[in-house]
Amino acid sequence: MNEILRRLDTILEARKQAAPRSSYVASLYAKGLDGVLKKIGEEAAELLLAAKGGDKQAVVHETADLWFHTLVMLHAMDLGHDHVLAELERRFGRSGLQEKASRHD
Amino acid sequence: MNEILRRLDTILEARKQAAPRSSYVASLYAKGLDGVLKKIGEEAAELLLAAKGGDKQAVVHETADLWFHTLVMLHAMDLGHDHVLAELERRFGRSGLQEKASRHD
Amino acid sequence: MNEILRRLDTILEARKQAAPRSSYVASLYAKGLDGVLKKIGEEAAELLLAAKGGDKQAVVHETADLWFHTLVMLHAMDLGHDHVLAELERRFGRSGLQEKASRHD
Amino acid sequence: MNEILRRLDTILEARKQAAPRSSYVASLYAKGLDGVLKKIGEEAAELLLAAKGGDKQAVVHETADLWFHTLVMLHAMDLGHDHVLAELERRFGRSGLQEKASRHD
Repeated sequence: MNEILRRLDTILEARKQAAPRSSYVASLYAKGLDGVLKKIGEEAAELLLAAKGGDKQAVVHETADLWFHTLVMLHAMDLGHDHVLAELERRFGRSGLQEKASRHD
Repeated sequence: MNEILRRLDTILEARKQAAPRSSYVASLYAKGLDGVLKKIGEEAAELLLAAKGGDKQAVVHETADLWFHTLVMLHAMDLGHDHVLAELERRFGRSGLQEKASRHD
Repeated sequence: MNEILRRLDTILEARKQAAPRSSYVASLYAKGLDGVLKKIGEEAAELLLAAKGGDKQAVVHETADLWFHTLVMLHAMDLGHDHVLAELERRFGRSGLQEKASRHD
Repeated sequence: MNEILRRLDTILEARKQAAPRSSYVASLYAKGLDGVLKKIGEEAAELLLAAKGGDKQAVVHETADLWFHTLVMLHAMDLGHDHVLAELERRFGRSGLQEKASRHD
């Protein structure tokens, strides 16, 4: 199932060539990085409200929205999901016991 | 590399049994869902600032922080990363062409 | 000039009786508290981006947006700007020297 | 009671000369604009959670926290509360009936 993150990388990269009106992602790119970041702020707020409300289905939906828009941001900056997973691997890959030590604050 | 999300599921589930002072994650669980959600708000703000600042390395770091804390939230609600990937699969798995259509707003 | 906060209290209270389509505020009330809170999350994100971008005029504009939407939220909960000013008065009114001491974290 | 905003302007301006460890505000200034903005993100998240939780006293407390930190941000950018009130006056001072029209989106 993790194939979906690779698939999204392909989709999001392809949308960079698309006309703004041709897809939701293309319209987001057309708004520039600020437009994508505003959506991330909006989706984070919606996630907090869904989680505080205790609705699990809404939480899954809003987390997917938030991850999706962070992926759009990554691609707008010529990055991809693999950079994020590599960072998590660096922190937690060897031993979960070091998670606290790996945090700088 | 995507193994890391499964690994994190295992780590985050195991931390539920740990004493609050024994690890960062255990201390987060001890603060309750509100404590985890505040961290998500904080990490989202840090991501916006990093991205607006244009520092790619900081963006990867902050996105990893944000994804990590959403995973902690999911586990605090007895969910896991697979629910989020399944939701993304449902939206984008068949054909990326339908991405716009699948969005309700 | 501080009269404007009292004026806004009057306006926001009056809008509770208005039809949703008759004004922006009435349409916000019609979305319920969640709708107002999502706007606050959105405006907070826009403020961070404006401030990080260093544009003073945009910062004033976005701070006004954020304060305005917190006022709408207060009225949606049958509160007003005077409750917030009274709280600030309680913390800072006697002597600014105690500001740190008055903070619990 | 609105005197408190003027008082806060005086306090926040005076804190610019203070040693970082001498007060909470001085320590915030010492972290730079990013530090203040992260606090705003954090306080916005706490406000959403308090409001969603329905606790009026907590909402007043968190709104005061949010307004206070936006005031610190304004002063860190050599602005003050009067700029924000003037902007609100510009939008709502003549007639509340135009509130919708004055909004650009």
